[in-house]
Amino acid sequence: MSFELLSSLIEKKDNRTVMGLDPVLSYVPEFMLNDARDNYGDTLEAAGAAITRFCMGLIDCAADYVAAVKPQSAFFEQYGIQGHIALERVIAYAKKAGLYVILDAKRGDIGTTAEAYANAGIGMTKIFENEVRACEADCITVNPYLGIDGVKPFIDTAVKYDKALFSLVKTSNPSGKEFQDIISDGEPVYIHVADKVAAWGEPYIGSDGYTPVGAVVGATYPEQLALLRKRLPHTFLLIPGYGAQGGAADDVAVGFDKNGGGAIVNSSRALMCAYKKAGDTSGENYKKHTVDAVIEMRDAINSAIKARS
Amino acid sequence: MSFELLSSLIEKKDNRTVMGLDPVLSYVPEFMLNDARDNYGDTLEAAGAAITRFCMGLIDCAADYVAAVKPQSAFFEQYGIQGHIALERVIAYAKKAGLYVILDAKRGDIGTTAEAYANAGIGMTKIFENEVRACEADCITVNPYLGIDGVKPFIDTAVKYDKALFSLVKTSNPSGKEFQDIISDGEPVYIHVADKVAAWGEPYIGSDGYTPVGAVVGATYPEQLALLRKRLPHTFLLIPGYGAQGGAADDVAVGFDKNGGGAIVNSSRALMCAYKKAGDTSGENYKKHTVDAVIEMRDAINSAIKARS
Repeated sequence: MSFELLSSLIEKKDNRTVMGLDPVLSYVPEFMLNDARDNYGDTLEAAGAAITRFCMGLIDCAADYVAAVKPQSAFFEQYGIQGHIALERVIAYAKKAGLYVILDAKRGDIGTTAEAYANAGIGMTKIFENEVRACEADCITVNPYLGIDGVKPFIDTAVKYDKALFSLVKTSNPSGKEFQDIISDGEPVYIHVADKVAAWGEPYIGSDGYTPVGAVVGATYPEQLALLRKRLPHTFLLIPGYGAQGGAADDVAVGFDKNGGGAIVNSSRALMCAYKKAGDTSGENYKKHTVDAVIEMRDAINSAIKARS
Repeated sequence: MSFELLSSLIEKKDNRTVMGLDPVLSYVPEFMLNDARDNYGDTLEAAGAAITRFCMGLIDCAADYVAAVKPQSAFFEQYGIQGHIALERVIAYAKKAGLYVILDAKRGDIGTTAEAYANAGIGMTKIFENEVRACEADCITVNPYLGIDGVKPFIDTAVKYDKALFSLVKTSNPSGKEFQDIISDGEPVYIHVADKVAAWGEPYIGSDGYTPVGAVVGATYPEQLALLRKRLPHTFLLIPGYGAQGGAADDVAVGFDKNGGGAIVNSSRALMCAYKKAGDTSGENYKKHTVDAVIEMRDAINSAIKARS
C-alpha cells in the first residue's frame, strides 16, 4: 500500500533520486529537434514527437539506475492535445520500464471535481458499465489550499487503487513564503498544513512505515526540511530544488529517515541536460551523460546520508 | 484589456451568470448517452463524444443569454486524451458562439512551470519559429499557495495576450477554512491573499475599472463576499457556490459594484440538469429547460442587485 512500491524500488536501486521529466523543447538534443521539424514542420505535432522521443530515451538509459520519474504536466500541456498524447505515452513507457511514476500536476479542487482529478491521475473513470484507467501514474502532486475537501478524494482514490499523493507543504521557490510562512498560533502556515497532511494519512500507514499522503518540501530550506522530517515521521517527502535551484546533497540528506528511506530528491534539468554541461553540443551522446549525472547525484546523496549516520 | 470583454458581454446580455460546463456522464441526457454507447461502446471515445455533444448543445441554447461559460478541466481530464480533445473542441465552439471562456483549471506552480501552464491555458507556445495557441480560453483559474512566483507568469501572459485570470481567495467549500481562515496579524489568510491579488493586478487596471487578476470568492460566505467586494474595488470576482451549494441571489448580490458590474456568478449543475428538475426524464427538451433556468437565474440576480441599489 501507499509508498511501498517506491520504497522497495529505492532500496533495490540504492538510489534516492527521481528523474524529473520537464520536456522543454530547448532541452531536447538538436538532432531530435531537426528530425521532428523535418517530419512535421513548426507544429505541435513536431513538439509532441520530439518530447516523446527524448523522454523515452531518458527512460531507456536511466531505468536501471533511478527508482522513479516525475513528468511535469505543465510542460506537456503547453503542447495541447499533442502534449497530452505525449504525456500518456511517456507514463505508459516508464511503467513498462519498471519505474515508479509521479505525475507532477499540483491539482486541487473540491468534492466531485477533486474526485475527477484523482480519477484522471491515479484512479479509474466509470464509463457506463466499464471502468477505464485514463492515466497509469502511481502518484500525483496536489495543492492543499482548499483544505481536506480538496485532498480527501485523492486520498480515497490512492487507498482504493494502491496509489499515493504528495501534498505541497513548503515549496522550494522564494515567494512560497508569502502565504506558507504567515505565522499563526506561533507556527507558520506550512506547519499547520504539514500537521494536517500527517493526520490525513495516519489511518493508512503502509509496511514501509509511510502513509500514502506525502509532502513536498523544498531542498532550498534545509532547516525546515530537517524540522519537518522529525515532525512527520510517517510522511514520505518529495524534495525538489536540488541542483539548479540551489539545494546540495548535505541539504537534502536531512530529509531522510535513519535507514535512508522516506524521501526522494528530484532533479530535472541537471539530468536531462547533462549532455550540454558536458559540452556534447549535438546531444548525440545524451544518454551517456545523463547516466553519468544520475550516478553522480545518487552517490552524492548516498554519501551525504552515510556521513550523517 | 483584462476583463473588458467579459464586462462588455455582461452588460450587453444584462446577465451576470456564467454557465459552468461540468461534463459528468450522469448529467448528459439519456438519448445522447445511448447514441454514444451505440457508436463506441463503453469506452473513453463514447464519453468524449457524449460530453462534446452535450456541451455544444448547451452552448447553442444559452449563447444568446449568458456572457460566459466555465468548462471545468477536471471533468474533461478524467476521460484522458478523449477528454482533452473534447475540452479543446468545446472551448473553440464557445468562442465561435461569441462567449467568454473561463477555463477552470486551478493551476499553480513556479517559474517556467507556471509559465508553461499559462501558455497552455491562455497564452501561446513557441514551436521553433512558430507561435501556436494550444487553447483558446480567455481566462484561467489559478491557485495562489506558491505565492507570486506561481501567479506572476499567469499575469504576464494575461497582460501580453489580453487575457485574464482568477486566483482562488475564499473558496465555497466548508473545509476551505482549514488554511484560508487561519488568523495572522488579526486577519485570516484569505485576506492576506486577497490583498496580494489586488496588489498584483493594480498596475494593469482596464477601462472597465478592473485588473486582469480576478478573485474566486464563494457564494456560501456572503459576509466575506461583501467585505471583499469593498476591500478590492478593482478586482473582478468569480462567485461559485450558487444554487446547489447553497448560495442565493441575495447572497451573491453583495459581490457586485454599484453599477452591477465587477462580478460573475457560476452555476453548473442547476443549468446543465434543469431538464431533470423539470421532470423531462429523457432529456429530449434539455435546451428549453436550460434556457428557462438561465433566465430565472439571470432575473433573480438582477432583481437582488436592483433591490440593494
